[in-house]
Amino acid sequence: MTQLDEAFLADWAIHSRFGAVAGTNGVDRQAASAADGEQRRWFAELLESRGFAVHRDRIGNQFGLLELVPGAPWVLTGSHMDSQPTAGRFDGAYGVMASAHACFRVADELRESGETPRCNLAVVNWFNEEGSRFKPSMMGSSVLTGKLPLAEALATPDPRGVTVAEALGELDELGEDDVFGAGSGREVASYAEIHVQQGRSMEEDGVTIGLVNATWAAHKFEFRVRGEQAHSGSTLMADRRDALLGAARLVVAARELVDEFEPGLLHTACGELNVYPNSPVVVASEVELLLDLRSPSSEVIARAHASLMATIDRVQREDRVDIEITAEHSWEQNPYPEAGVELAREVAVELGLTHDRVMTVAGHDSTNMKDEVPTVMLFVPSVDGVSHNLAEFTKDEDLIAGVGHLTGVVRRLAAGALLG
Amino acid sequence: MTQLDEAFLADWAIHSRFGAVAGTNGVDRQAASAADGEQRRWFAELLESRGFAVHRDRIGNQFGLLELVPGAPWVLTGSHMDSQPTAGRFDGAYGVMASAHACFRVADELRESGETPRCNLAVVNWFNEEGSRFKPSMMGSSVLTGKLPLAEALATPDPRGVTVAEALGELDELGEDDVFGAGSGREVASYAEIHVQQGRSMEEDGVTIGLVNATWAAHKFEFRVRGEQAHSGSTLMADRRDALLGAARLVVAARELVDEFEPGLLHTACGELNVYPNSPVVVASEVELLLDLRSPSSEVIARAHASLMATIDRVQREDRVDIEITAEHSWEQNPYPEAGVELAREVAVELGLTHDRVMTVAGHDSTNMKDEVPTVMLFVPSVDGVSHNLAEFTKDEDLIAGVGHLTGVVRRLAAGALLG
Repeated sequence: MTQLDEAFLADWAIHSRFGAVAGTNGVDRQAASAADGEQRRWFAELLESRGFAVHRDRIGNQFGLLELVPGAPWVLTGSHMDSQPTAGRFDGAYGVMASAHACFRVADELRESGETPRCNLAVVNWFNEEGSRFKPSMMGSSVLTGKLPLAEALATPDPRGVTVAEALGELDELGEDDVFGAGSGREVASYAEIHVQQGRSMEEDGVTIGLVNATWAAHKFEFRVRGEQAHSGSTLMADRRDALLGAARLVVAARELVDEFEPGLLHTACGELNVYPNSPVVVASEVELLLDLRSPSSEVIARAHASLMATIDRVQREDRVDIEITAEHSWEQNPYPEAGVELAREVAVELGLTHDRVMTVAGHDSTNMKDEVPTVMLFVPSVDGVSHNLAEFTKDEDLIAGVGHLTGVVRRLAAGALLG
Repeated sequence: MTQLDEAFLADWAIHSRFGAVAGTNGVDRQAASAADGEQRRWFAELLESRGFAVHRDRIGNQFGLLELVPGAPWVLTGSHMDSQPTAGRFDGAYGVMASAHACFRVADELRESGETPRCNLAVVNWFNEEGSRFKPSMMGSSVLTGKLPLAEALATPDPRGVTVAEALGELDELGEDDVFGAGSGREVASYAEIHVQQGRSMEEDGVTIGLVNATWAAHKFEFRVRGEQAHSGSTLMADRRDALLGAARLVVAARELVDEFEPGLLHTACGELNVYPNSPVVVASEVELLLDLRSPSSEVIARAHASLMATIDRVQREDRVDIEITAEHSWEQNPYPEAGVELAREVAVELGLTHDRVMTVAGHDSTNMKDEVPTVMLFVPSVDGVSHNLAEFTKDEDLIAGVGHLTGVVRRLAAGALLG
């Protein structure tokens, strides 16, 4: 292990303590929580100690900028440090720390060689990638890329009614800088991100570096099921219109949909469900739930969608509830730019790292960035693919290989690769 | 309509405004809420204006006492003024107001006639019958009858962590009096309660006064379903242990259980369900839910219980979740004392009111009291049996008939009926 690798692991060990859940190796560090604020302050100090200028934009994305060539465009690299409630310490945070160290290494190399790069170096800690406390997910990169209006994002409340603006303001993490926005005079030339896989195919196939070439197709629904409040003991069963029963049928139907296809072709989920009035002796009048369909095949999504709608018709009729889609969004199978995949492959070959093309099922901030600028998305393996779980784990040797690979990517991007 | 009836309806109209939900005829007046405090202050003034001394005991039960014969035992009559969230204005509150007016009438009659009763008169507004904010339901009468320790009840938190003691203290409704407790020197001789039916059989059968002769059998469960947190997109379906899926199967199974029996023989419900971490992209690791079985037949409950346990075994195996019963309680079909039913029947005959024996599916504070003292439980009809719903409704003529009937019952109890 090199001294550089030891330096990375030392910083990584410090970082993993922010929001640590006692008795576990995981964290609870939701967006704009106290733990998020603490790690941001520590990260700012780390960046500044290495000569990076720290900026926050108006949605709380945290940037470290090293301007090597005044006026040149920027290579941006990073991920997010927020977590789901009680989750692993690698998801997102590894990508930010790997990005910082990749930039530290490339900056030191450039200082030593005296070479002038074509791009400046920028690290980013995106705000609220997880979307657990504030919806939607990937909030910071969505605002930066103009997919979500700033004002709408700032006004988003958490379940207790605290808005994004209030929560970031409380932490003093709401910046004024339009860091890469219109009129800032700064231009992002390319983007790179590294993440743990959140699946187990790379581990099973013995692959160290995943060259992410596409995201799965998806269709996400927010449903509102309406019934009618009634006494849950005395009301005749035939008189009931039970919103929770209707919602439960959707949860079961989502799972059963999977069996209509070959194994692995469809993932479905319902992770969030809220009941009103949620009282022991009242038949629920309203339930809101989220339901996702994901597949590597857009055609499978379409067939699953049709089947789900048929189930909804039946549940509405048989259980006498109303089921409304209050929000939905969907996307086709969505490729990452092939030039970025090829660049990452060349770096892996150069470093002698096993590698393969993989698709991502989960969304990442790079999913937003790739629509704007040349983008490279990388994975390292995750043991058993455990994700959004305190027990998430990636081996030190894979973490180190990923930092080394990302350094190679940033080095080439700084030198002008993918600039066209 | 008599002047006495008009006086009742006038007070009833005032009372229905406490916690009124705008744009509806219903209320939201959970136990120890601000609206509960307001109605308690108004009710205390009403009782005092009619010569009753107002006391609160150590669990916040509110009493109005009229001591006509020093040292004599007490006829207690009442119900509860707290409501489920967004519920009807009749449930409980009608019983308290009817009790107050029945006592006012009997007191006036006694003053006029100069007769000396065998019992004094007491009205009660039981604390937290509904059990929506603080569990369990029937808290006030359970403490008074020694079924629930006072300290345990006072320490019970609501979902925000506010305890019963804190909430009652805030309203200045936590009394010091051991009104009918050991050492108080007061003895309750008998208890009477009137309530809207929460079912539609009386309306359909054209019955004005229900003579409640038994409660249904019931088996109530609190389940904890445990799975494992995972990324709800990327985790392979076969790797998931989805607690919400397991819980949804129980909700559906509860409904399907009903079809194993003749219509009306089994009521099942799940009204409360809480998901952790309840995040859009996390497979739930834990769900807590309440599930009830109710039947007029204890044998049906036993068969339904066995069937439910078989379903739980299957869900645990097939969905790879753990299902634990964290609490349960059950009771057999439970009779009200026949002497009380007969007394109520005689009063109905005397007043020329249509009447019939009915069972109650819902629990009432009288369910606690009947185990301690001679008890009379009465119903008046409810339109379409709508209950725990803003639209709950009982006609004025039925409200008035109920007050008249309860007055007859209180008159006889005060004269010594059921004293043995």
